[in-house]
Amino acid sequence: MQSKFDYNALLNEYNGYKQQELKLDMSRGKPAENQLDTAERILTVIQTNADCFSRDGIDCRNYGNLTGIPEVRELFSNILGVSPDEVIAGGNSSLNLMYDTVARAMSHGVKKGSKPWSKYDKISFLCPVPGYDRHFAICEYNNINMINVPMIAEGPDMDVVEMYIKNDDTIKGIWCVPKYSNPTGITYSDETVMRFANLKPKADDFRVFWDNAYALHDINDKADKLLNVLEAAKKVGNEDLFYIFTSTSKISYAGAGIAALACSKNNINAVLEGLKVQTIGYDKINQLRHCRMFPTFESVLEQMQKHLKIVKPKFVAVLEAFEKNLSGVEDINWTNPNGGYFISLNLPNGTAKRVVQLAKEAGVTLTPAGATYPYGVDPEDRNIRVAPTYPSLAELNKALPIMCCCAKLAIAEKQIR
Amino acid sequence: MQSKFDYNALLNEYNGYKQQELKLDMSRGKPAENQLDTAERILTVIQTNADCFSRDGIDCRNYGNLTGIPEVRELFSNILGVSPDEVIAGGNSSLNLMYDTVARAMSHGVKKGSKPWSKYDKISFLCPVPGYDRHFAICEYNNINMINVPMIAEGPDMDVVEMYIKNDDTIKGIWCVPKYSNPTGITYSDETVMRFANLKPKADDFRVFWDNAYALHDINDKADKLLNVLEAAKKVGNEDLFYIFTSTSKISYAGAGIAALACSKNNINAVLEGLKVQTIGYDKINQLRHCRMFPTFESVLEQMQKHLKIVKPKFVAVLEAFEKNLSGVEDINWTNPNGGYFISLNLPNGTAKRVVQLAKEAGVTLTPAGATYPYGVDPEDRNIRVAPTYPSLAELNKALPIMCCCAKLAIAEKQIR
Repeated sequence: MQSKFDYNALLNEYNGYKQQELKLDMSRGKPAENQLDTAERILTVIQTNADCFSRDGIDCRNYGNLTGIPEVRELFSNILGVSPDEVIAGGNSSLNLMYDTVARAMSHGVKKGSKPWSKYDKISFLCPVPGYDRHFAICEYNNINMINVPMIAEGPDMDVVEMYIKNDDTIKGIWCVPKYSNPTGITYSDETVMRFANLKPKADDFRVFWDNAYALHDINDKADKLLNVLEAAKKVGNEDLFYIFTSTSKISYAGAGIAALACSKNNINAVLEGLKVQTIGYDKINQLRHCRMFPTFESVLEQMQKHLKIVKPKFVAVLEAFEKNLSGVEDINWTNPNGGYFISLNLPNGTAKRVVQLAKEAGVTLTPAGATYPYGVDPEDRNIRVAPTYPSLAELNKALPIMCCCAKLAIAEKQIR
Repeated sequence: MQSKFDYNALLNEYNGYKQQELKLDMSRGKPAENQLDTAERILTVIQTNADCFSRDGIDCRNYGNLTGIPEVRELFSNILGVSPDEVIAGGNSSLNLMYDTVARAMSHGVKKGSKPWSKYDKISFLCPVPGYDRHFAICEYNNINMINVPMIAEGPDMDVVEMYIKNDDTIKGIWCVPKYSNPTGITYSDETVMRFANLKPKADDFRVFWDNAYALHDINDKADKLLNVLEAAKKVGNEDLFYIFTSTSKISYAGAGIAALACSKNNINAVLEGLKVQTIGYDKINQLRHCRMFPTFESVLEQMQKHLKIVKPKFVAVLEAFEKNLSGVEDINWTNPNGGYFISLNLPNGTAKRVVQLAKEAGVTLTPAGATYPYGVDPEDRNIRVAPTYPSLAELNKALPIMCCCAKLAIAEKQIR
């Protein structure tokens, strides 16, 4: 265990980096330009008027078809392991579908006759931490109280989850990224998924927001397998508890993909009550483009292999840099995921913010410390979400020694204080 | 004035139509297939990876740019006569932008610190009638009371509008289709627009929902001109009163166009407070497609000429059929608009529902009677929205005599009762 650093040597090294005047961005889980390049064919799969019809003759240029065209519902049914009529295919943003689902529950409740969440004095969501800042932002904006639940190796600590949900009917939801979780990269174990499927919430309007954003996003040959929660929930009549989200944002285009909500038919019908007022239908031409680009599930998997080839070396670079520079440092550890977009780095308590600040001043933008916690507050100020996909490998190899230097410098600063 | 009909002759004629077993749809304001065909080039204006960048280098395939890419904001600034930074370009649906704007006002108020509309005991919108059913549906779903305001030749009766807005602070909004209004085809007069611009609402969170869906949608060489309400409102410091909506749904594709919200910078900033939580950004590739297809405002106007050529003969056919079959009938009149998607037909009181039912049984689907009024209730049961664009001219020429026969038969039925 290395526990004592040479502050002056680190400061010298850091100042050297500063003089390079770099501008590197490791802040968001964005695909790199060459990942986006792999989907080029989607731009030309529809070229003529005659191309614009779905397989059963829907003119995708015109209004209508609120739930999405049949083939795009089928595409998502294959990705998520649900039935096509359990899918609503949307626009380009699964975040938007999540926001709308929460907003609708706030204003109208989760089903016909149920009390709008906004009419309760106080409601809460459970938030496994570290987690995804944009999930937490939806709660904060909608005045939903957030309760931290620790992530363990198997997923959220289900003892804690069950304790809250079973006993407290003001708990109305929980945010989950069940596969290659943001930012830990953990995939929920079979036992965890089964415990979710068998939850007995005290509130009859409790819902699980199951954001399966990284369903197919392996970076290793050794891929994680996620149990099908909707299937398991059906066996105990619990299927209405789940809203499942995914998108092609990291399959085709981050800004111009297709998002989907999958859920029980009861929930689909309840969602449509609001959705039919909100829009006449999402962009069906772009839905059709995706179906032409990905006519089979196998073609989606082939596409994911192209992403894997680009993303994997970046994860390897991060892990190697951490191994080389941070291994053996007291109270530092990081995750080594089989997929997803993030590595979660835990530092000694009270140093994460300082590391992000030091890195910023040296031209390396990291995800803000605290962002992985509700209200932006990491109670121990120790977690940093590392997002290696957006920079090139060359940029990453410049940024990583700087990041590691900042981590050690922040520790050294504390030691000399 | 024709006031007495031969019931048996009309019934014979009607039964003859019935035997044809037609299936014709005049229910919605949808573009016809050959209108959609005119935009074919938009499918191929972006073909390669290198094509996917906005003029200032934004990778439109990736996340980001919540307000839309600069060139699409400029496109809408030209269509609406506002500044580009007064525009948020969205996804494919202006209805969705309207819904979201109402929903946000319900949950969070119209600006920082203002009371959410849902926290009032009761709030109301003014609804010029006849009007657009999907506007009314947004109110109904959100439990906003609706108050009918008569449409006169100049637009909504502004004496009534001002009386309500000046005296009642529970009036929070009004729905307007200021140009080629749905369904009357009326364009608000300069005086009406000026009175809107100078409104002095009692409620400080009152907003005008100015749905300029038909800004460029002339069907005659004699085009209506709509005064610029935002410009006029600025002169009296009233610019925060307006949310202006439009879209390319009836310029490019009804289901795959681009929608926009235009408003004061104060309102833009207030909207973004919620929008930044709701999504990371709308589909920028489709925004860019529209800018490549329509690099200048002139190119949009050229496109509208193609629509005009297809749409105009259909309006002429309706007007000729009405003239031939219904002219001189007591208590029947219809509008003769210079643009838009509708003709508004007024029948003798208490016959509209019956006409729609008779037409349906003869295979002609009309917009449901009452749809043009809040809660689906036309108090006099006399208005039918005629939507001539979707059927072909040949289909229309089959449907129109049937529709006219149904109108006369419904009147005759009343006479023999």
